[in-house]
Amino acid sequence: MPRFEHRRHQAPRTLSQPRELVLACAPMRSGVNLSRIARAAGCCGVTRIVCTGRAKLDPKIARDAAENIVLESHRTLPPALRMLRHEGYTLVGLEQTTNSSDLHSFVFDHMTALVVGNERQGLTDDALAELDAVVEIPVWGLPYSYNVATATVMAMYEYCRQFPDG
Amino acid sequence: MPRFEHRRHQAPRTLSQPRELVLACAPMRSGVNLSRIARAAGCCGVTRIVCTGRAKLDPKIARDAAENIVLESHRTLPPALRMLRHEGYTLVGLEQTTNSSDLHSFVFDHMTALVVGNERQGLTDDALAELDAVVEIPVWGLPYSYNVATATVMAMYEYCRQFPDG
Repeated sequence: MPRFEHRRHQAPRTLSQPRELVLACAPMRSGVNLSRIARAAGCCGVTRIVCTGRAKLDPKIARDAAENIVLESHRTLPPALRMLRHEGYTLVGLEQTTNSSDLHSFVFDHMTALVVGNERQGLTDDALAELDAVVEIPVWGLPYSYNVATATVMAMYEYCRQFPDG
Repeated sequence: MPRFEHRRHQAPRTLSQPRELVLACAPMRSGVNLSRIARAAGCCGVTRIVCTGRAKLDPKIARDAAENIVLESHRTLPPALRMLRHEGYTLVGLEQTTNSSDLHSFVFDHMTALVVGNERQGLTDDALAELDAVVEIPVWGLPYSYNVATATVMAMYEYCRQFPDG
């Protein structure tokens, strides 16, 4: 009998409590990136994405992630971040900045809003000013910058690794 | 002075030795996924991707990742995997199978070939038969499956977390 046999479409893991990870996204240039983020977020058990700008999911990319995710639309990021802080979330930006922490060693708070910037500009200064922490992901080679959805996926993975049961 | 100020396009980290992580990819349906994988691999310091089928990078997506990555073309995956084993690599598939290990707790060998399946079929039985181990990534919600590039990114992140200096 083969040692490794396909076991696709098995039942997902169960969380002992709902995920308290929220994503907060700057206006994106590309619905593709937002949709990739949404699909990964759905798989990670995330149920809330705070969007800004014209946020629209492509169901061919996001699949049915949107079924369990509430996509909140806000006009701009800073007031949405203040709202999230008021709700008790620690605001953690994903960016290359001064005083940033290495994602490899960063200890996430359970209630975390992961704040993701635009593909080109990253997080603007007025969004950075609202943050409690910034994490960055080590880069060792060309092209010296992760795609925004790739970086978000890595950060979500790290959060879920720290809180596998929710 | 603001606490967090942009520090984009800083110098990358240096590895104390070349990355001994190689990617080995089944024929992909989409050059987009392969190109996303290549961009992330480049940033992670990976220098070699073993491709099968008609593998072509889209430079708009992969950026200049290809400058430091050798893209090897092979016709099919199993002989390429045997070649990699012969070179000393541990063959680790990314798939949902019986006897798979949780990526969160998997301890990578330094010389690892991460073996990635096709978007639809995943890894075929003849590829699975060559593997030393299979890792899978926990899924907690819809759509119950990560995109292939997303899953590859998570596994590369985990490898780099374990070997930050190469």
